[in-house]
Amino acid sequence: METTLAQARLILASGSPRRRELLSHFGIPFAVIPSDVDEACNGTGIAQVAMLALRKGADVASTHPHLPVLSADTLVCLADKVLGKPANALDAEHMLSVLSGAWHQVHTGLCMRLPDGRLFERVETTNVKFRTLSHAEIARYIATGEPMDKAGAYAMQERGGMFVERIEGSPTNVIGLPLAALAQVLTAAGLLTDG
Amino acid sequence: METTLAQARLILASGSPRRRELLSHFGIPFAVIPSDVDEACNGTGIAQVAMLALRKGADVASTHPHLPVLSADTLVCLADKVLGKPANALDAEHMLSVLSGAWHQVHTGLCMRLPDGRLFERVETTNVKFRTLSHAEIARYIATGEPMDKAGAYAMQERGGMFVERIEGSPTNVIGLPLAALAQVLTAAGLLTDG
Repeated sequence: METTLAQARLILASGSPRRRELLSHFGIPFAVIPSDVDEACNGTGIAQVAMLALRKGADVASTHPHLPVLSADTLVCLADKVLGKPANALDAEHMLSVLSGAWHQVHTGLCMRLPDGRLFERVETTNVKFRTLSHAEIARYIATGEPMDKAGAYAMQERGGMFVERIEGSPTNVIGLPLAALAQVLTAAGLLTDG
Repeated sequence: METTLAQARLILASGSPRRRELLSHFGIPFAVIPSDVDEACNGTGIAQVAMLALRKGADVASTHPHLPVLSADTLVCLADKVLGKPANALDAEHMLSVLSGAWHQVHTGLCMRLPDGRLFERVETTNVKFRTLSHAEIARYIATGEPMDKAGAYAMQERGGMFVERIEGSPTNVIGLPLAALAQVLTAAGLLTDG
């Protein structure tokens, strides 16, 4: 659960409310310290999420070296094109139009940096298929405001779930934090005990 | 959104808070009237969810014939065995132990019954893979109380999301209402317009 820095056993280097909620399921007391690392980055989608997760963790660990730091970055890709957060409603409309009726990929880079120097990195990919959307549906969805701060202009765990016909891979990865992969990383880091 | 019977364009024949939340994404005013049809039923998992969804809808439509009635039933199956809601903590522990490290199936039967006699039925299946769980993890999960009213003893959209390594199929189907299939049924019923 989220707590003060003094009581935390882990720092989450992300301000995303979705990641905070997902991490809280493990019952490990954690503090939230978002990184302000610049998100501009080159390379393929997988390379970008891996690099950004690493950079965000290094940024927060530089000022908080005595606690494990968990960082993550999520991107939506269609073929070779990276779809970030939409700049405006027109951009969101364009993204949702190209996602309509097609498969796309959601990549999350996960990085756990421990005070003793150990580093655990993972990139998880989930394939997501949208059903075919009408212009009216896309317009109604954009009018809700939900797409504006979401990579790929949708949130699967909210109204955007209406568009998802099927997925192959981790569902929580699409929301921004792949929980089964995270459980392995937390176990390796000694934060999830079997006792 | 959920509303009174007088303002509703649709009846949801289910008391599940998860189904209420999922259905509300479509913005169609609906009223909730749960069916008290007996859930005891024979046959394979798919046959059971199809029959129960149909019966629940018929039950509610018999007293409310003037509105479309949407009903659903969800079961978790491992191989040929149906896993219902656990009877007690020991039962939940047994279910989670057999699900650990394995693929299982979640079936949802969906039924939309219209006042003019039309009937739309769908069964959607999603494959779900759990990571390997320790006895301690299972015990901690049961102690939260979350498994007790859930088919298969877990809730993917809550803490149970920690156990899900990957899925193949509709994610909202696992939560009890496959939204992409439902969108098609709502469109066929004339409740989702493109205007």
